[in-house]
Amino acid sequence: MTAFASAVSIDGLMTELLALAKITEAEPPVVTRVVFGEADLRARAFVKGLCADAGLEVTEDAVGNTFARWPGSDPTLAPIATGSHIDAIPNAGLYDGCVGVLGGLEAMRTLKRLGLVPRRSIELVVFTAEEPTRFGIGCLGSRMMANVLTPEQARALRDKEGSGLEEWRARAGFKGDLASVAVAAGRFHRFVELHIEQGPYLESEGYDAGLVTHIAAPASQRIVIEGEGGHAGGKLMPGRKDALTAAAELILALEAAAKSSGAIDTVGTVGICNVFPGAVNSVPSRVELTTDVRDIDGARRDRVLDALAAAASAVSARRGVAIATELINADPPATCDTEILAALEESAIAAGKKYKRMVARAYHDSSFVSCIAPTAMLFIPCRGGVSHRPDEYASPEWIGGGVQILARTLAKLAQ
Amino acid sequence: MTAFASAVSIDGLMTELLALAKITEAEPPVVTRVVFGEADLRARAFVKGLCADAGLEVTEDAVGNTFARWPGSDPTLAPIATGSHIDAIPNAGLYDGCVGVLGGLEAMRTLKRLGLVPRRSIELVVFTAEEPTRFGIGCLGSRMMANVLTPEQARALRDKEGSGLEEWRARAGFKGDLASVAVAAGRFHRFVELHIEQGPYLESEGYDAGLVTHIAAPASQRIVIEGEGGHAGGKLMPGRKDALTAAAELILALEAAAKSSGAIDTVGTVGICNVFPGAVNSVPSRVELTTDVRDIDGARRDRVLDALAAAASAVSARRGVAIATELINADPPATCDTEILAALEESAIAAGKKYKRMVARAYHDSSFVSCIAPTAMLFIPCRGGVSHRPDEYASPEWIGGGVQILARTLAKLAQ
Repeated sequence: MTAFASAVSIDGLMTELLALAKITEAEPPVVTRVVFGEADLRARAFVKGLCADAGLEVTEDAVGNTFARWPGSDPTLAPIATGSHIDAIPNAGLYDGCVGVLGGLEAMRTLKRLGLVPRRSIELVVFTAEEPTRFGIGCLGSRMMANVLTPEQARALRDKEGSGLEEWRARAGFKGDLASVAVAAGRFHRFVELHIEQGPYLESEGYDAGLVTHIAAPASQRIVIEGEGGHAGGKLMPGRKDALTAAAELILALEAAAKSSGAIDTVGTVGICNVFPGAVNSVPSRVELTTDVRDIDGARRDRVLDALAAAASAVSARRGVAIATELINADPPATCDTEILAALEESAIAAGKKYKRMVARAYHDSSFVSCIAPTAMLFIPCRGGVSHRPDEYASPEWIGGGVQILARTLAKLAQ
Repeated sequence: MTAFASAVSIDGLMTELLALAKITEAEPPVVTRVVFGEADLRARAFVKGLCADAGLEVTEDAVGNTFARWPGSDPTLAPIATGSHIDAIPNAGLYDGCVGVLGGLEAMRTLKRLGLVPRRSIELVVFTAEEPTRFGIGCLGSRMMANVLTPEQARALRDKEGSGLEEWRARAGFKGDLASVAVAAGRFHRFVELHIEQGPYLESEGYDAGLVTHIAAPASQRIVIEGEGGHAGGKLMPGRKDALTAAAELILALEAAAKSSGAIDTVGTVGICNVFPGAVNSVPSRVELTTDVRDIDGARRDRVLDALAAAASAVSARRGVAIATELINADPPATCDTEILAALEESAIAAGKKYKRMVARAYHDSSFVSCIAPTAMLFIPCRGGVSHRPDEYASPEWIGGGVQILARTLAKLAQ
């Protein structure tokens, strides 16, 4: 038992994390690493160097997803994989993603130090562009691996200046057909991602680890309500087709549907409400809303969307306004794999760590990997729930505990 | 009877209206005459010249309100007044305001041509800045005459570049203490304003004239709702303090209160709804609304505001959000003078014109003159209800009919 704890080189890992954090477009300790930017490319080289030092076989796909393989005793078997991302939004910290990449590598090195020889190969995966900064879409690499984002859709992506993914990846040196990024079912036997919680609960409740049972995912819509404008004085109430009062009904209908789903995990939000013409003395003629509905259960999420659609029909008929709904996206919620969760639980107990099962409410690369392989996530605490900020922090103890649990889990799964 | 009809020089009046329209900051036929701008000053000179030609005594007050007096046989009596404005918003037409000024002048000239000598003096008033273009506040001159806008408030007015009313009026040559603009009660015996309807009803219903019984006026508020933001995924429904769902309740509460006031003349509008931070995946932390409530009855309008305040208290308590309400303005609704209305009615009948009584739903200089003198308005049709556009149009027949009714009314009131 204590062999695992002492085999983890937490000092070495922290040194590597701090070194990676210094590869940034910003002034350290601020981390900014936008995908395919100069800092992202240097960070990739740094990580690939560490992988090579550890004796792993490094390959890259056409969009820059990176795979570092430790061949098992039976290399014909599908590998166990772990990993996360190293890109960072502007003005970020050093733990989001990187703990899963360098921590995953340290878990593999720990097994090597202990002299273990896994039956299945173990792979570290560094996903391209988990953050949406450059192209406006999150989890680019894992979406493409799962073919949730098709090569055609990927080729259509543009940054704010109009440069495309094709241009950026060519500049970064990633070649080959984008269609080759999607992986076949069975490519990975199982996948487990170590990540900071990005929420306050583990720390505040005194847990060392969170075993993620479900990853919630959003369905987003744009709703455009077309009514009839007019002067706020001249247009009498009976003849009005006020787009904003219609919108108010939809905002409340979404709230009611989310609240009455029967599950605490259902959330519904209208985050944007743009009113035209937007003058004190004008009856609103058009309103644009966005809706964001999340759940860990896709069917239950769809029922909320159905309730909203029914409300929209009723409001449209009653108020004489036109309501058009466009689906922006509907990403898959993930239910984590029971076998991985069992292995994580045994490992946490063996490591003497206090853990709880929990839901991940923001999405991760695991959301998309779960479409192609049994997947689970392991959360460690982060101070105050702060993330995506330079003062993001996870203690060496939390990180070391996570790496130990992950190493034990990889060993079990690769048997 | 026909004496009045033939004494109105509609051709002369139309020539003057077209000549005035050519004094513009824009390319004719587009009319733009922002108060104290070069075109406004030339237009003032043009109108004052016509008044002098008609033998009227012209004076101006400290803010440029202009008075052209025809002394009656008993000059100790308070005069009957008529008038409107000649300033025009950018990209306007040639009838709004100008029909009331040059039509009022023509009504006075008609009485002179008929050899009538009024007992009371008759005055034409040209109000400064009915339009809010320069200083963001409508009816500047008439508000100041009624002391609804105090000299202190007037001195604080600024244009978009930061130049003040004091600077503008000095440049335009208007001197003297702004406190001298307010007039004493009794300064006018009665006031009647001729104006295009700026709505479609007289034309579509086949009326020659509208006798305005009430002028509605708005009370406007800014409502700021402060809730608690958060990630649309991480913030569960039970703990939310969503500022936008709270706002939706207020939007619907205002609509319900306006609809259930018991009178068709009550209208309530939320025209602006700004949401912060305004992202698809963020729970709104703050919402700013504006409300515009209008009525012809001030007490009934106040009851709608009370109902909205009660709704705000309830929503604030139930949802745990802070709601702050600030009154932007509360202008006085006007009830028109029955004696003027009777004179207008007799005059319309005598002129053989088809008329109806109606409510003015946008405010006019008359709204403020009504605070200091018995007041009424006379509407004539305008094509398609179009106003504040270059294609604004009132036919010579409509205008001539209005002038004839106004002339007869002034004669009656000045007896």
